[in-house]
Amino acid sequence: MADEQTKEAKVKITPRGEDFPRWYTDVIAAADLADYSPVKGCMVIKPYGYALWETIQAVLGARIKETGAENAYFPLFIPEEFLRREAEHVEGFSPELAVVTYAGGKELDEKLVVRPTSETIMYDSFSRWIRSYRDLPMMINQWCNVVRWEMRTRLFLRTTEFLWQEGHTAHATHEEAEGKVLEMLEIYREFLQDTMAIPVITGAKSAKEKFAGALQTHTIEALMQDGKALQCGTSHDLGQNFAKAFDITFLDDEGELRHTWQTSWGMTTRLIGALVMVHGDDKGIVIPPQMAHVKVVFVPIWKSDEEKAAVCEAARGLAGEMDVEAKIDDRDLRPAWRYTEWERKGVPVRIEIGPRDLANDQAVVVRRDTGEKTSVAQSELAAKVTETLESIQRAMLDRALAFREANTRDVDSWDEVVALMEGDGGFARVGWCGDEACEDRVQEETKATIRCILGEEPGSSRLCVVCGKDSTHIVMLARAY
Amino acid sequence: MADEQTKEAKVKITPRGEDFPRWYTDVIAAADLADYSPVKGCMVIKPYGYALWETIQAVLGARIKETGAENAYFPLFIPEEFLRREAEHVEGFSPELAVVTYAGGKELDEKLVVRPTSETIMYDSFSRWIRSYRDLPMMINQWCNVVRWEMRTRLFLRTTEFLWQEGHTAHATHEEAEGKVLEMLEIYREFLQDTMAIPVITGAKSAKEKFAGALQTHTIEALMQDGKALQCGTSHDLGQNFAKAFDITFLDDEGELRHTWQTSWGMTTRLIGALVMVHGDDKGIVIPPQMAHVKVVFVPIWKSDEEKAAVCEAARGLAGEMDVEAKIDDRDLRPAWRYTEWERKGVPVRIEIGPRDLANDQAVVVRRDTGEKTSVAQSELAAKVTETLESIQRAMLDRALAFREANTRDVDSWDEVVALMEGDGGFARVGWCGDEACEDRVQEETKATIRCILGEEPGSSRLCVVCGKDSTHIVMLARAY
Repeated sequence: MADEQTKEAKVKITPRGEDFPRWYTDVIAAADLADYSPVKGCMVIKPYGYALWETIQAVLGARIKETGAENAYFPLFIPEEFLRREAEHVEGFSPELAVVTYAGGKELDEKLVVRPTSETIMYDSFSRWIRSYRDLPMMINQWCNVVRWEMRTRLFLRTTEFLWQEGHTAHATHEEAEGKVLEMLEIYREFLQDTMAIPVITGAKSAKEKFAGALQTHTIEALMQDGKALQCGTSHDLGQNFAKAFDITFLDDEGELRHTWQTSWGMTTRLIGALVMVHGDDKGIVIPPQMAHVKVVFVPIWKSDEEKAAVCEAARGLAGEMDVEAKIDDRDLRPAWRYTEWERKGVPVRIEIGPRDLANDQAVVVRRDTGEKTSVAQSELAAKVTETLESIQRAMLDRALAFREANTRDVDSWDEVVALMEGDGGFARVGWCGDEACEDRVQEETKATIRCILGEEPGSSRLCVVCGKDSTHIVMLARAY
Repeated sequence: MADEQTKEAKVKITPRGEDFPRWYTDVIAAADLADYSPVKGCMVIKPYGYALWETIQAVLGARIKETGAENAYFPLFIPEEFLRREAEHVEGFSPELAVVTYAGGKELDEKLVVRPTSETIMYDSFSRWIRSYRDLPMMINQWCNVVRWEMRTRLFLRTTEFLWQEGHTAHATHEEAEGKVLEMLEIYREFLQDTMAIPVITGAKSAKEKFAGALQTHTIEALMQDGKALQCGTSHDLGQNFAKAFDITFLDDEGELRHTWQTSWGMTTRLIGALVMVHGDDKGIVIPPQMAHVKVVFVPIWKSDEEKAAVCEAARGLAGEMDVEAKIDDRDLRPAWRYTEWERKGVPVRIEIGPRDLANDQAVVVRRDTGEKTSVAQSELAAKVTETLESIQRAMLDRALAFREANTRDVDSWDEVVALMEGDGGFARVGWCGDEACEDRVQEETKATIRCILGEEPGSSRLCVVCGKDSTHIVMLARAY
């Protein structure tokens, strides 16, 4: 038995309660998800982290295709002039742009922006592709990298370059476009809930927080264990803003030329950060079974070579009977270090099997989420594992939901908002008069923002938590990443 | 019945014999594979073309994972200084670089190159990740976009930005690395042959044509219908060049510090161009069943609404019995225009079914590759379609192979080489003395290049086709894209 720890097992994980941001960084290192790169703000997504992204691409990608959107690929570079066509859009993105000024050995006549998002380059094509109402709706999705120059970066949550999917649709009517915005928001909500075991609240952004160039932005927001919110995906009603800027018109069924109504929507590698911060514990990440690349790992235990041969053979036989693929970790390392490594990597189920288990025709099933250990007869192991995986998936969602509920409060006084945001954080459900001055004051004095508008309620008895006037909206406040 | 052609049916396809390059461009438009973009040299890959790339990613991606390589993601941007560390590498790539000089509202202190390939950025990480022989072999693959500033571009074949996979491995010994180079070359060869029905020849590149920074480059080369060769994939033996430039070292099992031996290998969206030029005909592209997103399309034929209801219902029932997913094209367009569209899109099998077929319990199966039509009893349709798809896949490879064999000639005289390259083209198998002067003369006087070295044969009786001295190599010459 080699007396050497693996690199994952060597990382010391700071407890969450001591320093949450350090815990986050430690956990990513301990699970070997990602690494810093020599390029400012860019990260290297390592294989174990990239496998999570591949699961997101597979599951969410299939759901997006089911809505009728087709995948395509548009250029990385955007002529600077394109961005300028939509005034709000260029204003919103200008500070974050990376620009190619030099290529093929000489200065470029027209500078090229590295895409921060693809509305403009796609809609230039849309303006040529769309002629008649028969071409509508046009629904295109793209999986790609984008670049937004960020000052303060953090692995997965905010990086200069990130990976995402961006969907773009064009419709004949505003009503249909609005329907699409909400349809995609619901697909995002379901994906987070059913696959990532992350409960989210949905709603509209305030005018101040909406996407640059949109009429309205809808968002899904999740609550992290440190009481901060994380925006996990957005779906934008672009109205006719870009259709007018790029002259995207169609002949309707009465032969009249009209501008299209458009939407765009996206989710990013940030979701991996959400997974870490919603489910992780002081031992490392915890991956919901539906997201896990490695769902089950056998850790055989032995003292002699003969024992090793016997327990490994038994493990291989049992693994072969599983409904899911199981990994067998037969490395010559102490069992405790192998346990630690798979705990750090968040594998949902570990199965320990040693000579004594073999003698008793049993194995020990260990749940990653609770640490619970159960001895199981070998004949029942496959069924027990399937059941345990389902149970873990449900339990993780339930726990995350319970945490969010416990940390979502109806608040009616300004002092309480201030105290809450300086204390445990979480969501504060409050009344808002709709005035941007009140919104600004929230941010200035509590560092919280309006995460989303839950609904409008004209004539509500609730008052604006900031100014005390009648409220027109119920909104969720939180500090956020 | 609407009297309107689809956009695909409207494109006029220039016959191959009249103007091959125009035929190529027409066919891409007629099949709706890609579109030019407003950014110089960049293309938009449209959904029908991107579906081909998704098949490549799925099939080749699975094969790459089976070799033990893991997917990861490295930054798009590379510090300029990294490229300079390997002298040949920077010399080879410098003329093609796109450079970000301005970002986040200010001039960058260090310019960032948009990756033309990722050796340097990946090996910087490798130098931190690799410590001991236990970390080897390290095998990483990445699917991403890369940028090489090209003067003369052509859809899929040569574009400023393209998509690819790039595999990078590090090994303890040169022997092991050499084995990996050939293993990946063989995986590429098999993929092209078995999935894309494209036969290829394999061999080493001459020193002049090898990858900038490699000891040796191996290549797979296919022959297009115009007699030109297309390099379809390469696998590089990097020796210790990059290991020394990036100080990638490991402690071997005797505790000695040594540099790793490395390989890299890649295939790109150019493969879609190969598919068009190997299999297409004057009616459009022809997609091998293994590559086809839509393998089977039903085109129901009717005159009245009642007939439409009946034939479409029958088509749906028959489609449900198929082993593969079948599309039903029930658009209100003349059958001839629907036929034309699916021919242009290269769908392997079309099934025509009209009222008379219904009365006779039959349907008509039409092969895209040969145009052959067969009436088939409905009870036998599913089996017939499965068999026909297999037959098409085989026949397409056989035809491509026969074409290549017919256009591969052993040539022993210089005049014959000149005449061949100015005439029908194809591969000329010739002796070469190994002298770069002779290689240069081939290129200058015939516009052909050494596509690959088939083998070394010291003491061969064959003479160098250029200078008439003893040859040391048998090589394939061809004009190439």
